[in-house]
Amino acid sequence: MNLKSMYSKSTATMKSSLIRELVASTKGIKGLISFAGGFPSPQTFPVQDLAEIFNEVIDSDGCDILQYGASEGDNFLKTEIKKWEKKDYLADDEILIVDGATNGIYYFTQTLINPGDVILCEGPSFLDTLVAFEAAGAEVVPVSMDDEGINMAELDEVIAKLKAENKTIKFIYTIPDFQNPTGVTMSLQRRHDLIKTAIKHSILLLEDDPYSQLRYKGENIKSLYAIAREDYQNSQVVTAVKSFSKILGPGLRVAYVLADKELIQPMISWLQKVIVSPNCVAERAVAKYMRDDKLNPHIEKIQKFYAPYMEAMLNALEKYMPKEVKWPEIEGGIFIWLTCPEHINTDELFEKAKEMKISFIPGSKFYPTNHERFNSLRLNFSYPSIEQIDAGVKALGDLLKSMI
Amino acid sequence: MNLKSMYSKSTATMKSSLIRELVASTKGIKGLISFAGGFPSPQTFPVQDLAEIFNEVIDSDGCDILQYGASEGDNFLKTEIKKWEKKDYLADDEILIVDGATNGIYYFTQTLINPGDVILCEGPSFLDTLVAFEAAGAEVVPVSMDDEGINMAELDEVIAKLKAENKTIKFIYTIPDFQNPTGVTMSLQRRHDLIKTAIKHSILLLEDDPYSQLRYKGENIKSLYAIAREDYQNSQVVTAVKSFSKILGPGLRVAYVLADKELIQPMISWLQKVIVSPNCVAERAVAKYMRDDKLNPHIEKIQKFYAPYMEAMLNALEKYMPKEVKWPEIEGGIFIWLTCPEHINTDELFEKAKEMKISFIPGSKFYPTNHERFNSLRLNFSYPSIEQIDAGVKALGDLLKSMI
Repeated sequence: MNLKSMYSKSTATMKSSLIRELVASTKGIKGLISFAGGFPSPQTFPVQDLAEIFNEVIDSDGCDILQYGASEGDNFLKTEIKKWEKKDYLADDEILIVDGATNGIYYFTQTLINPGDVILCEGPSFLDTLVAFEAAGAEVVPVSMDDEGINMAELDEVIAKLKAENKTIKFIYTIPDFQNPTGVTMSLQRRHDLIKTAIKHSILLLEDDPYSQLRYKGENIKSLYAIAREDYQNSQVVTAVKSFSKILGPGLRVAYVLADKELIQPMISWLQKVIVSPNCVAERAVAKYMRDDKLNPHIEKIQKFYAPYMEAMLNALEKYMPKEVKWPEIEGGIFIWLTCPEHINTDELFEKAKEMKISFIPGSKFYPTNHERFNSLRLNFSYPSIEQIDAGVKALGDLLKSMI
Repeated sequence: MNLKSMYSKSTATMKSSLIRELVASTKGIKGLISFAGGFPSPQTFPVQDLAEIFNEVIDSDGCDILQYGASEGDNFLKTEIKKWEKKDYLADDEILIVDGATNGIYYFTQTLINPGDVILCEGPSFLDTLVAFEAAGAEVVPVSMDDEGINMAELDEVIAKLKAENKTIKFIYTIPDFQNPTGVTMSLQRRHDLIKTAIKHSILLLEDDPYSQLRYKGENIKSLYAIAREDYQNSQVVTAVKSFSKILGPGLRVAYVLADKELIQPMISWLQKVIVSPNCVAERAVAKYMRDDKLNPHIEKIQKFYAPYMEAMLNALEKYMPKEVKWPEIEGGIFIWLTCPEHINTDELFEKAKEMKISFIPGSKFYPTNHERFNSLRLNFSYPSIEQIDAGVKALGDLLKSMI
């Protein structure tokens, strides 16, 4: 049997994650300094607490949580999320617990996207999400960014152009806090502007928030979700996806979605078809972790843990990079984005750096198909040691100086 | 904003689980005897062992299993599955760990189905899967069953008819052991016949196996997957989905798929878009449970636990049902299917039984759209007590006698 000939059209044309392949290509290089990953540091996982809490919740609630659970997620966890979010307007049927942020984004996409519909995103943006959008048949159109987030003038132009072409724009995908891959945080003013534009054109906003708790300096900026509901007459234009992956550990697969109940309802219907119910054991464990008031102290601990890594990265860039290379001011997260002069091709830089046992992700991997740009790169600073950050950035800086 | 007007076509036309709604309609009836559910008994969950094992694996492997894991599933669990399956031909890249059987079936469906493609199934079959097939745009066509499984003469006719209409039949969905909803187990001869037909027509077989370990008498029958590989020149025509839900507890969300690597590969690509990686913590816990040689003794314990429930159900049916009502011989599982004379409508019977505080699922809920039949019903015997089984079947029998 020729199995490949039996694939569905979407499977036959599906892109895999280029990042995964790039990272795989450097595996096994001894002494590699890797700025390529996007994993949180395992040193930030509350291993002992979670070991005890899983034991306790299975011991006390095993007959309940080892059974099929409610498709919309564990009620105990919803209660804790509501307390933690401190939004008294948040109703139970506006929360959906999912198996990681990507899982929530998948149900949102299935709920809305017909083949040919347009999704707008920041350019660059998180590749794995863009690939999932394309697998759903969406046309993904990027809008460039500046230091305050998505470029509003360009967004207006793009919307006008797509509307003139009779295209249906369903939503704008954005990572407003410590964006992947740039590290940029959207300013408060830009958030207001974006919400106004979305409401004006009846385009939904999908706020992907894996990193907002990883702030090492400066002040928190109100989420798009909170701004829309609190400052724009309870507007439900924003759907937010929030994850515990970068706080407690991605292996738990626990995240949640805040949205209008008319979006949550069909997302639950998709969840029932994809996974029946989310993983009840991990959900109850996270609920107990929150109820025991462990979450906020743990977040403070993580922030203190990562702060020196960001400082080391910023110091090394300042010290070693040629003046032609630019990067944004960042105050948290795990990534920073370097922009080189136009003639530098970072796909080529990747190969040269690999020979020097240094790895990163070339910028071209963060754009939708046919929108690639080649003079930028993403550096991660949550995985390498502080010494590696200094040595690796020095070597990259020297390499770039030789090419400029 | 009119959110409903923004739904995708597949969302706007999606059916929800009628079973869920029916079960909800009887919630809160005090003293209800329910034959409606499909949940395993929480008394069969190895709560103490799992509480300890989760503690141990997080304590010892926390930094590993709380991190993102391999998309294809935990290698430790794969190793244990290979030992347990005792199939020396089984390669690592022929196994995919998923978050429950439904999750595996979803990736298989995404891999193969274009809108309009045909999926054949037993009629009746497990409604939630049929609804998921329809949401993927498939045309789902049922083939009737007899006491040995799917009706082969009718299957041949249906295939010939659909081929004449130039339709693409991608696969046949079957639950060969203790089928949901009928309780019927496919005979060995029928399994061979089905595989031969599938190979002849280049149609894949999807073997859904949640119940095969729940055998309380008689001998195990070789799985479709094993027959195809061992007796038909290593044929990969069968993809098997096996779940720990009915053995260790559905709340764990751990199941696995055995398939040709050309099917596993695209299923992994879908998994990466839907969920990134399956839940590593639960996977490692199941791996340790298996490595500690706890699985087989636990399965024996469950079999002994359920056997009296099946016996009570069969005895009560024999004692109380009018002779016009028929049911198959069953040797395990958690369901049995009653067929009444043609003029009995079990949707109406459901309402009458509800007044008597008895609940079950009417047969019409187990057929694809436009193929419903109305003179049958499903009874579950893993949830009610032995006393409730006797009393509930007596009352149902009396009710049916008054209608025949």
